[in-house]
Amino acid sequence: MADKLDALRSLMSSHSPPLDALVVPSEDYHQSEYVSSRDKRREFVSGFTGSTGLALITRKEALLWTDARYFLQAAQQLSDQWKLMRIGEDPAVDVWMVDNLPHDAAIGTDPWCVSIDTAQRWEPAFAKKQQKLVQTSTNLVDEVWKNRPPLEINPVNVHALEFAGRSATDKLNDLRERLTQEKARGIIITALDEVAWLYNIRGSDVSYCPVVQAFAIVTRTSAFFYVDQRKLSSEVVNHMQVSGYLMENGIEVREYGAVTADVSSLASNQLGPCAFKETQSEVSGGTETGSREDAAESIKTEAEDGGSDDLIWADPGSCCYALYSKLDSNRFLLKQSPLALAKALKNPIELDGLRKAHIRDGAAVVQYLVWLDKQMHENYGASGYFEEGETLAQKKLEGKKLTELTVSDKLESFRASKEHFKSLSFPTISSVGPNAAMNHYRPQPNTCAELDADSIYLFDSGAQYLDGTTDITRTVHFGRPSAHEKACYTAVLKGHIALGNARFPKGTTGYALDILARLPLWKDGLDYRHGTGHGIGSYLNVHEGPHSISYGTRALNVPMQASMTVTDEPGYYEDGNFGIRLENLLVVIEADTKFNFGDKGYLSFEHITWAPYQTKLINLSLLTTEEIDWLNAYHSKCRDILAPYLDDAEMAWLKKATEPVRA
Amino acid sequence: MADKLDALRSLMSSHSPPLDALVVPSEDYHQSEYVSSRDKRREFVSGFTGSTGLALITRKEALLWTDARYFLQAAQQLSDQWKLMRIGEDPAVDVWMVDNLPHDAAIGTDPWCVSIDTAQRWEPAFAKKQQKLVQTSTNLVDEVWKNRPPLEINPVNVHALEFAGRSATDKLNDLRERLTQEKARGIIITALDEVAWLYNIRGSDVSYCPVVQAFAIVTRTSAFFYVDQRKLSSEVVNHMQVSGYLMENGIEVREYGAVTADVSSLASNQLGPCAFKETQSEVSGGTETGSREDAAESIKTEAEDGGSDDLIWADPGSCCYALYSKLDSNRFLLKQSPLALAKALKNPIELDGLRKAHIRDGAAVVQYLVWLDKQMHENYGASGYFEEGETLAQKKLEGKKLTELTVSDKLESFRASKEHFKSLSFPTISSVGPNAAMNHYRPQPNTCAELDADSIYLFDSGAQYLDGTTDITRTVHFGRPSAHEKACYTAVLKGHIALGNARFPKGTTGYALDILARLPLWKDGLDYRHGTGHGIGSYLNVHEGPHSISYGTRALNVPMQASMTVTDEPGYYEDGNFGIRLENLLVVIEADTKFNFGDKGYLSFEHITWAPYQTKLINLSLLTTEEIDWLNAYHSKCRDILAPYLDDAEMAWLKKATEPVRA
Repeated sequence: MADKLDALRSLMSSHSPPLDALVVPSEDYHQSEYVSSRDKRREFVSGFTGSTGLALITRKEALLWTDARYFLQAAQQLSDQWKLMRIGEDPAVDVWMVDNLPHDAAIGTDPWCVSIDTAQRWEPAFAKKQQKLVQTSTNLVDEVWKNRPPLEINPVNVHALEFAGRSATDKLNDLRERLTQEKARGIIITALDEVAWLYNIRGSDVSYCPVVQAFAIVTRTSAFFYVDQRKLSSEVVNHMQVSGYLMENGIEVREYGAVTADVSSLASNQLGPCAFKETQSEVSGGTETGSREDAAESIKTEAEDGGSDDLIWADPGSCCYALYSKLDSNRFLLKQSPLALAKALKNPIELDGLRKAHIRDGAAVVQYLVWLDKQMHENYGASGYFEEGETLAQKKLEGKKLTELTVSDKLESFRASKEHFKSLSFPTISSVGPNAAMNHYRPQPNTCAELDADSIYLFDSGAQYLDGTTDITRTVHFGRPSAHEKACYTAVLKGHIALGNARFPKGTTGYALDILARLPLWKDGLDYRHGTGHGIGSYLNVHEGPHSISYGTRALNVPMQASMTVTDEPGYYEDGNFGIRLENLLVVIEADTKFNFGDKGYLSFEHITWAPYQTKLINLSLLTTEEIDWLNAYHSKCRDILAPYLDDAEMAWLKKATEPVRA
Repeated sequence: MADKLDALRSLMSSHSPPLDALVVPSEDYHQSEYVSSRDKRREFVSGFTGSTGLALITRKEALLWTDARYFLQAAQQLSDQWKLMRIGEDPAVDVWMVDNLPHDAAIGTDPWCVSIDTAQRWEPAFAKKQQKLVQTSTNLVDEVWKNRPPLEINPVNVHALEFAGRSATDKLNDLRERLTQEKARGIIITALDEVAWLYNIRGSDVSYCPVVQAFAIVTRTSAFFYVDQRKLSSEVVNHMQVSGYLMENGIEVREYGAVTADVSSLASNQLGPCAFKETQSEVSGGTETGSREDAAESIKTEAEDGGSDDLIWADPGSCCYALYSKLDSNRFLLKQSPLALAKALKNPIELDGLRKAHIRDGAAVVQYLVWLDKQMHENYGASGYFEEGETLAQKKLEGKKLTELTVSDKLESFRASKEHFKSLSFPTISSVGPNAAMNHYRPQPNTCAELDADSIYLFDSGAQYLDGTTDITRTVHFGRPSAHEKACYTAVLKGHIALGNARFPKGTTGYALDILARLPLWKDGLDYRHGTGHGIGSYLNVHEGPHSISYGTRALNVPMQASMTVTDEPGYYEDGNFGIRLENLLVVIEADTKFNFGDKGYLSFEHITWAPYQTKLINLSLLTTEEIDWLNAYHSKCRDILAPYLDDAEMAWLKKATEPVRA
């Protein structure tokens, strides 16, 4: 670890200008949350494996900022050379740099790994002390990373219309309408899931995220796809250019690196669809000349309009500073990409797919619980999922030892047996006792814990199916939980139910709804340090915006809207003891309210996750009649909906697990 | 009405430059919510009497913007010449002006009646069309207002320490610490309640608000009070300069109009405490030379420091544009006045006073209900407060006719009989049936409704007592309420209880809490178009910031903090039918939670309003056990706490009204 820092500091010194500090963010060139292994530069330099963090290397210090989900994990993973900076407690990274780096300091970073937003926040802060953000021409971390994983040539696949629900042509038409509305000549699309969603393609360039490392540029009349062309089959090339009857996607494929030059061409209005027209003629027949003439017509119109609609739309949160900083900033429309919301509003076919995927996924979770219950009983002398008994004297055999990782492999195998399974949607969080208190814990082969009949076990997991992405958390105990554990579980469950049952007028934000999930915890002075809900993709990223349910002010930006997906996942974490989280996926739907005050229209949630809550962990006396009724109805529906996917023994277990309860 | 508009348009034409439009806001020179009768310029020109609104007179049109509370009332009060602009539905006033007024339009306004914030929002909007905000040198409305009420010379009173809890000297010391922190040379205090609070004085210049029409300027070493000096007794003059043992307020009194010149002097660092020193010598004895030498010392220091701490602090929300626009804007620190929060955090003596005032006030409300119940029974054949019977054939005699106004006079008389009563704290909202649906309805002599045994009756009222300001709303029915009315009342009550019972970590905003009061209504598709809670003064304004409980984003700015007051007043209003609102005053207190996750500290609310909820209007089957327990406990406490103030008959009535209920 010291070698890396020494090597980096040596490069910083020899850089022109010499750098006083180097910022190494977690993100790749697309500002992704999850990145490919060769893009895990921050993990490589710091040793911290969490998904969010920022490393700062100065001439004498090395610091890592991360958020509360990762405080414990980062403290364990960082070596003595690193200082952990706790977001929300310690000064923010820009504040720290201004306060601690010298006057006139040169602060280096790779401008491809920093968003426009971030750079625009830092630069004026630095200016107060005549400090400068220096864009390095190469990534210094890559230079010292000797065994950096090689570039993978993973195939790109067409995401079939039966799952996508809407053609790329349809989506392009909508996007071009937005360009017209916003007087934009074109848009740079940098977020990997937006590129995949828009063009109806999927890939495997990033573990757990079925995306392709690619950019897109769309203008009023043309569309471009920047990708390593070795990844494309002729089917994909054909899909890009022509797709099905009367649909012309008309997307021109270009090399990944060509995006820089093309953004400049777009700025000078030189980025035309000429190449596209030629390619079109090669690929399609001569029968659709009419529509191509229309296209030529609209090109002329665009050229005649000249400078009036000449903005380049870039999402300042996802577009890298490298593509922005070289051009005149007046040419840019900096505004959230319209694809963020378009992608979040699932179409009926996507919703249907998500519902089906969650049923199969729920069946896998139940099968896992049945299996785990049996293992815990037989190998660990546990009283099991249903009984609150003493754990018998240890019966386990060395060969039967269960660890957080071995059991999560079993969970994966149940999922993998299901139709349309492609991969997990994120590394399974399989955590025993104190490990469950680290709310984004990921078990590691050498350090992961053994299962324990006397400890809470929390698993948060999901998968990518062709028809949808899943994400579910359940918390269970196979022995005798303490009254305190039960009280906490019950408070979490009450919050989970309260949010899921909410009805609210259109326009309500996720910031406002967040409190519903926390209120039962707050009553006892309990809370959790993470948001309550995130959107989820349709066979895409497991975390998706632009909406969320959270106390963070970002949750104020986009209100809940019908056909959005959002998780409902309150928790409670007691450092060194245990952690609890319950998570279902909700779909925002129109509510059938008795009245409609203000003609605003009201919304509610539909649960589409199906797996039982462990009633043994509930202190039923703390539930209201309404909550008990909801629980029994949910459990009854679980039984009905999962029955086709379970064998007799599994079904018998589920029946027992979903027996109605009374206060 | 036409005459006024014609006269104004004539003045607009002859103005230099000629005005294309004239903005007439509701506010006075201090941006007050409630203004003196001679400052009701917007009411005078438009005829609309609500507390919030903005009139715009163009060459051909006259428009009035107001918020949803006043849509019905404004529609009734505005003549045909006026167009009602509904805030939230119609374009905002600045958007409308840009869209509808000509290029280069001159838009006039009196810069004393517009805040810095407002002017700074308008000017760039206007600039888009080369429109200009023109500051008129006189108020054009005053020029056409023939019978404008004369200036009143109302005496200023010292607010005794036994009620204020803290001396002006103490408050000045804290304020000066903030000036140092913010590197401000001085602060202009324009909000009337802030001046009154800081200097521990009260007056009667504005109906219902015990404030004095005055400005203050405070520097590191001096303090000024700008007021019509005819209002000051020698006791007040003495209080300003010296007050009690070892306390020197040292406040120099100057004429109201001198503030303009003094702000300029402050900007050029010419505003010194010289005059104060002379006055001091006249009034106080020669025994305290030591402290005056200290003062001289600190003046020297200030002068030597020169330009380093040279900002002038002005609250952009309450300081008028007139005092700001003439000076270099770089000299200003535009930031919420530190007195807003200081005043909101009640000291223990203020809290004690508020609690006592609310008990006496609650007794007056109960006495009123007892009286009203008897009247409704005897004169209107009503089954009364307790019974849900048919109303008997009309028995009323002409002489016994009860109107919204006559009954509210009776309510006032009950309050007036209580210790420390000074005045009402706002015009009583006394409203029958459909009138109650106008949620800030104020009955007028010629149009107010008669009481009706078969309609809901809502009264929202409060008083100014020397020891505290009150504000309470109850909704009652003296006949047989419909199942729908009961369901709505119950939903409002559930929201009221949910908010009042909340516990939440420090840092929680009123925006987040707002949803708790609405959720039970939203369940049925019901809602209300106003905020849920506002702060309340200590023998000061009935509406007080800087915090609030609301879906408005202003409620995000200042989180709830211990010792704040805030109302809990959800409602439901059905146009043309009825209105329901329930309002108690809450005090934010430290919560005694079982745990303290994150060491944040938790808060809860203490109800300090005491008056029964009409159980006849509650559909008990819709309440949870927890809600019923709360209701019974509250009612039981009502009985105990009000007993000393009620006679036997009143107490018998209250006992019946507060009998425990069961689901």
